Amino acid sequence: MQPKGFKFSAVEAAIKKPGRLDLALIFSEMPATLAAVFTTNKVKAAPVLLGMERAKDGICQAVVVNSGNANACTGPRGMEDARQTSRLVAEGLGIPDEAVQVSSTGVIGVQLPMERLRSGLPKLVEGLGSGSLDDVARAIMTTDTFPKLETRQGEAGGVCYTITGVAKGAGMIMPNMATMLAFIVTDAAVDPAWLRKAFCQVIDASFNVITVDGDTSTNDTALLLANGAAGNPIIQGGTPEADRFMRELRDVVLALARQIVRDGEGATKFVAITVKGALTAEEARRAAMSVANSSLVKTAFFGQDANWGRILAAVGYAGVAVDPDRVALFFDDVLMADNGFFAGGDAETRGSEVLHKKEFTVTVDLRLGEGCSTVYTSDLSYDYVKINADYRT
Amino acid sequence: MQPKGFKFSAVEAAIKKPGRLDLALIFSEMPATLAAVFTTNKVKAAPVLLGMERAKDGICQAVVVNSGNANACTGPRGMEDARQTSRLVAEGLGIPDEAVQVSSTGVIGVQLPMERLRSGLPKLVEGLGSGSLDDVARAIMTTDTFPKLETRQGEAGGVCYTITGVAKGAGMIMPNMATMLAFIVTDAAVDPAWLRKAFCQVIDASFNVITVDGDTSTNDTALLLANGAAGNPIIQGGTPEADRFMRELRDVVLALARQIVRDGEGATKFVAITVKGALTAEEARRAAMSVANSSLVKTAFFGQDANWGRILAAVGYAGVAVDPDRVALFFDDVLMADNGFFAGGDAETRGSEVLHKKEFTVTVDLRLGEGCSTVYTSDLSYDYVKINADYRT
Repeated sequence: MQPKGFKFSAVEAAIKKPGRLDLALIFSEMPATLAAVFTTNKVKAAPVLLGMERAKDGICQAVVVNSGNANACTGPRGMEDARQTSRLVAEGLGIPDEAVQVSSTGVIGVQLPMERLRSGLPKLVEGLGSGSLDDVARAIMTTDTFPKLETRQGEAGGVCYTITGVAKGAGMIMPNMATMLAFIVTDAAVDPAWLRKAFCQVIDASFNVITVDGDTSTNDTALLLANGAAGNPIIQGGTPEADRFMRELRDVVLALARQIVRDGEGATKFVAITVKGALTAEEARRAAMSVANSSLVKTAFFGQDANWGRILAAVGYAGVAVDPDRVALFFDDVLMADNGFFAGGDAETRGSEVLHKKEFTVTVDLRLGEGCSTVYTSDLSYDYVKINADYRT
Repeated sequence: MQPKGFKFSAVEAAIKKPGRLDLALIFSEMPATLAAVFTTNKVKAAPVLLGMERAKDGICQAVVVNSGNANACTGPRGMEDARQTSRLVAEGLGIPDEAVQVSSTGVIGVQLPMERLRSGLPKLVEGLGSGSLDDVARAIMTTDTFPKLETRQGEAGGVCYTITGVAKGAGMIMPNMATMLAFIVTDAAVDPAWLRKAFCQVIDASFNVITVDGDTSTNDTALLLANGAAGNPIIQGGTPEADRFMRELRDVVLALARQIVRDGEGATKFVAITVKGALTAEEARRAAMSVANSSLVKTAFFGQDANWGRILAAVGYAGVAVDPDRVALFFDDVLMADNGFFAGGDAETRGSEVLHKKEFTVTVDLRLGEGCSTVYTSDLSYDYVKINADYRT
């Protein structure tokens, strides 16, 4: 069950340690409509700068991605290396240079080993069709402990289409950053302008509501290629077909986002933090993010400690409207605090039981308005410190 | 060498574990001018709410402070307990209730053990004069590993005065928050309006430029009492005497702030992060804070890893003007990156040597303007996770 008209390959180019795939290619047999979202970090990796420039055309036919080196903070040579990578792929495939997107993830501040790429890229092109999207998912892993892949099918005008995505998350063995990369391919034919709008909305409700450590990478990239090979009538915005496509796309992307949190560096917990009753949805999100990024909250999750006071404190410094005397706080469905203070009864015991689960929810009701938002996060464990402190030793 | 006209005492009231001072009193024989700065967290502990109300009068004669319980998120009963604490102290001392400031630090969301306070407070009042400010410094400790005390002397109109401060920092054994409390007393006579302005400026350049984990507590309080017992001519703003007082006050408060970072939870490093060349001082500070609070940067410090890429990334997402191609980055005086990429040569070796020191500086030059700011921070270690995950087990 794979979108039609796409081919994949992955090879070992010795950018990472031996025995690991580290270079991958996604190829569409026909030019595909591209929707792209890139990091908001002002320090952008060379491939991100190149990709942003090319995304303006809205067309893409190939995505080449390496792990093990982020090609970030690498100056003019880094940009030249990204362009050369693109050129070698374009020549090999016989497509325009501008139709290639380049992605990198891995160590920051080190130049790409171009001689290895130069010898790996032809093999990658030759191998097209021999690999699957699952190989691509493996090739982009760094400290990820499992490959992240998700597929859904939809239907438009009686024609079935497939949406498949791969992603890599927060964690690297050698490198310096937790980078998020996601590549979604579909054989659906979709109106380009609507597709881009839809993709932004989906990203906003998925990759933009997850956090592992609050650090925004230099390399974050999410690409969606729609090549129309399914042969469906073009999906237009404002139709039931568009709603259906949106739903399937959201399922794929949200599932990838959740997998990233589950596989967060050193994560032992998966926590959905909902803030409701805020003045606006944006304030709800800011408050939820403040909780999700609090080191004190995250260490309490790791310690399985029903420490609701830290959560209220994190809401309090989020910079949103809060009336502490109204706030209610739940772990799953256990009311821990009401009107800003301890709910009493057996809340301590029952709350502690919730925190001992691997997955649970935290709900904060500000009781001020209708604004609601959910953010997904992990805990802060010894292993997070270990992974990020010892990586070069 | 202690400011004149102040008396101190500290007792064990069994709020913390046995054998530890946990209740302290600072008393001025005459009403003192008060300058006060409280947490910006919207969830404020009961004593903070009470203290803010009373600080408006600008007069204070006694400060009573307990550790082991923050009296935060404790609802109406918490507020009544803070008021009762104040009342008992005021009655014992024979001063107006409004002249008492109450401070608490410790576990959030648990009601104060008032019967213990009721039996401890009379002993505290009786014991006045038997204790020193050093005892107060000990009584407010939680997971602090050493008491924090600093003294400077100045001179105005030929009269010598003393400024002494105590503080407690980021770390608690039993409790739920890293709270910062600071109490500074001086026997100098100072114009009240100018004193308040000066104190805000000093706080802004000291306690507001330190961070251990980025969590702003519900209880942060800094109080400055000036009782004039030295007998100097009143220090007025805009005079050489005011400049001198400002300098001594800043020395005391900055030294306390630095002690707090040095004693940060699990800290093994003390790092001064300077951002210069920013468009404005405020942008410089925001960028420096972003670096200082990055979990990836802080774990790299702990791992003694000269990981400059993470620092550039944290500057990049700080939301300030950055031209990545201009940025220079130094560890102490070792140039690690120039124009946004690796400086080459022996930078790796020399940078690594710097990171192996217990104290070092990070300087980021944005080369855009004149804005400059320095922030002090610690690293993120296994012990930080341990202290904050396991505290109730």
